[in-house]
Amino acid sequence: MSETVADRAALMEQETRLSESPSAVPGTVRPGGRTAKVRRAVLDATEDALATAAFHTLNMDQIAASAGVGKTTVYRRWGSPTGLVADLLHDMAEQSLPAADTGSLPGDLRANAALVHRTLTDPRMGAVFRAVIAAAACDEECARALNGFYRTRLAEWAPVVTRAAARGEVPAGTDALELLRAVSAPLYYRFAITREELTEADAERAVTAALAAASAGAFTGRPGAE
Amino acid sequence: MSETVADRAALMEQETRLSESPSAVPGTVRPGGRTAKVRRAVLDATEDALATAAFHTLNMDQIAASAGVGKTTVYRRWGSPTGLVADLLHDMAEQSLPAADTGSLPGDLRANAALVHRTLTDPRMGAVFRAVIAAAACDEECARALNGFYRTRLAEWAPVVTRAAARGEVPAGTDALELLRAVSAPLYYRFAITREELTEADAERAVTAALAAASAGAFTGRPGAE
Repeated sequence: MSETVADRAALMEQETRLSESPSAVPGTVRPGGRTAKVRRAVLDATEDALATAAFHTLNMDQIAASAGVGKTTVYRRWGSPTGLVADLLHDMAEQSLPAADTGSLPGDLRANAALVHRTLTDPRMGAVFRAVIAAAACDEECARALNGFYRTRLAEWAPVVTRAAARGEVPAGTDALELLRAVSAPLYYRFAITREELTEADAERAVTAALAAASAGAFTGRPGAE
Repeated sequence: MSETVADRAALMEQETRLSESPSAVPGTVRPGGRTAKVRRAVLDATEDALATAAFHTLNMDQIAASAGVGKTTVYRRWGSPTGLVADLLHDMAEQSLPAADTGSLPGDLRANAALVHRTLTDPRMGAVFRAVIAAAACDEECARALNGFYRTRLAEWAPVVTRAAARGEVPAGTDALELLRAVSAPLYYRFAITREELTEADAERAVTAALAAASAGAFTGRPGAE
């Protein structure tokens, strides 16, 4: 897949486009076509609810009504509001597009940081991410699902670092996931922890800092060595 | 104040020791002695509740009972569970001990990272921090209070970087708060976002990476310059 501006735009939406895939559950289209449609409708309604109100106000009956699905189905299949949030996170993990491949590590990491920045500063998706992070703080099933979501995303982007290592852009043995975490962490820290403004300059600084740390060997698995 | 092992232990507890100060509200001991005692009892009960259950289950009546304070007082003074969480965060910001001063930037940043690591991995305080982060995701008053808590902590530690700059350990113009954020961010990212295990090695790596980035000038305010 060649990299075009349209691909970049699509990439940018990787974490925001949660509700447009008609068959989000592989293998369930037939005979699970109806099951998949019900799931899509219920998860869309869940996301809509999280985009506009705090997770602890999620109401199963309202979501069933918004989705046009019977309450019994929603209760039987998802059990609780946290069950809905956990499944939304599973669905988000499944909605995947390829990671950037600009030909250079700085370019790829900038694309990654821009994706995170745009997702978190998007009014709708920022609210959804705040909600799922809060839900994970309150419920272990949601915590596992959030962990799974980020493990999936990190694994998808790891080849960016593997290719960079092959090109000699980072020291041999650089831990791909640690480098990727270093790009995202400062952005999420402002967004969810210190509740500070999150700007494009923060995204750029995160990339610059992560690249400098990687070049210095901070992510080669010997962090304590001096 | 000389640095001793005891001082370090006290430092470590900076964010954990929320409930032992008999006069947490300066200027209110007289004539506000009773007011301060009531606040202390109610905030202790709030912290106890957050340490054992999710924030959205906070119950004003139960907290009043645990604190041995009349319900009317609690409702009149704090208004809502989120009002209690916000005031707990104000109190946490007030509970302050001096930042490390080991004589070197790596030493001071290691003390800072160790403090964050120990706080977040402490069963009680980890639960409290998860709860206040979740509360901030759901309520603007809590979000402002959480922001104020971290602004206070960052400002308290900023002299660590100022002294390091005077010693020539970091480039002139290094943004103290950005360097400190770079130490904390990877730890909070694992703790609250990706929900991954948080180890001492992660704390050490965060310091190594932040120092390398600082040395490379990533925090001198020209992150986009190439």
